[in-house]
Amino acid sequence: MSATPVRATKGEETRSQILAAAVEQASASGFESLTIGVLAEKIGMSKSGLFAHFGSKLDLQIAALDEAARRFTEAVFLPSLKAPRGLRRLRAFFENMIGWTGRAGLPGGCPIDAATREYRHQPGPMRDAVIARQRQLDGELAKAVRMAIETGELAPDTDAEQFAFEAMGLALAFYRTEPIVGALEASRRTRAAFDRLVEQHLPTSR
Amino acid sequence: MSATPVRATKGEETRSQILAAAVEQASASGFESLTIGVLAEKIGMSKSGLFAHFGSKLDLQIAALDEAARRFTEAVFLPSLKAPRGLRRLRAFFENMIGWTGRAGLPGGCPIDAATREYRHQPGPMRDAVIARQRQLDGELAKAVRMAIETGELAPDTDAEQFAFEAMGLALAFYRTEPIVGALEASRRTRAAFDRLVEQHLPTSR
Repeated sequence: MSATPVRATKGEETRSQILAAAVEQASASGFESLTIGVLAEKIGMSKSGLFAHFGSKLDLQIAALDEAARRFTEAVFLPSLKAPRGLRRLRAFFENMIGWTGRAGLPGGCPIDAATREYRHQPGPMRDAVIARQRQLDGELAKAVRMAIETGELAPDTDAEQFAFEAMGLALAFYRTEPIVGALEASRRTRAAFDRLVEQHLPTSR
Repeated sequence: MSATPVRATKGEETRSQILAAAVEQASASGFESLTIGVLAEKIGMSKSGLFAHFGSKLDLQIAALDEAARRFTEAVFLPSLKAPRGLRRLRAFFENMIGWTGRAGLPGGCPIDAATREYRHQPGPMRDAVIARQRQLDGELAKAVRMAIETGELAPDTDAEQFAFEAMGLALAFYRTEPIVGALEASRRTRAAFDRLVEQHLPTSR
């Protein structure tokens, strides 16, 4: 006798479908646009059906933010773990950040960055949740830098937080500049700057 | 006999008042939130009164974007012209970019960056207007870099567009990181990175 296969219940499937639509909507128009009504219409569901999954706009917003973070982890962080720890993994992490939203079908850009803009000046649960997510991301990026210091590929006096800060700036500059000069030129500038950042922190260059 | 003093007409004053409210609203909630109805309520004016100044949502959005660009010029670009041309002016330009929105009473951040996010994936007049504004800003920043090359303060082989791209990334990283680590630490990281960027491009370091 075989064990009962683990299968997503109908409820779980519906929840996933709602969250996929919510993340797409947040990427394009921000988290404040995530009302139960707008989303119900978008996915052709009744408002009461959607309420059965998310009891309030805030519930839905927090769940959509968690789902966006999960998608980031899946598209950026996890694939970088396939590279050996050290500089190659750090480089993979950075490369995966560049343009991950395009590959993830989120043409509006990173939903978590959208949320930072929306809630930075509005104290409350969304602001707290967004900052916690960004802090986690900064922590992962700094950790990848520290590993490259541990493997001896970056100089021992490299400031991991500062390096991560500058790498994040390059990723943001890529997203801002892409619509102005095109993806090819924006990638070229981003990679040239990242290569120079790495080069300045090689053990041999200190 | 004295000349008649130049004075803003009542209509011009009302227009300025509407635009100030529109820029504030766009900074906090984006340009898509700029409907005639919402703005009329915000400033306690009738919708028909507002329609007399801006015939459509798009008219209002474009005028608000122009006003945001004017405020940027006034807060960031013009004051930098007081510094002597060359590295000091470039540094003043960069310093003025950091936190200009806070000083300008726009806690939601730069409205033009908000607009880039909102319209990058939506072809149309707002996208065109935003990209034109960003291109102009990139041009001014690259020009400030080129002046510092001309005065001999930066190395002759400095790539002005690349330098401007990286400086812009640092300004974006400041805005993103400020709510996570606080303004003091975010400024420290931003300035440390900018100083190093300058240092790498000094004529003596090439």
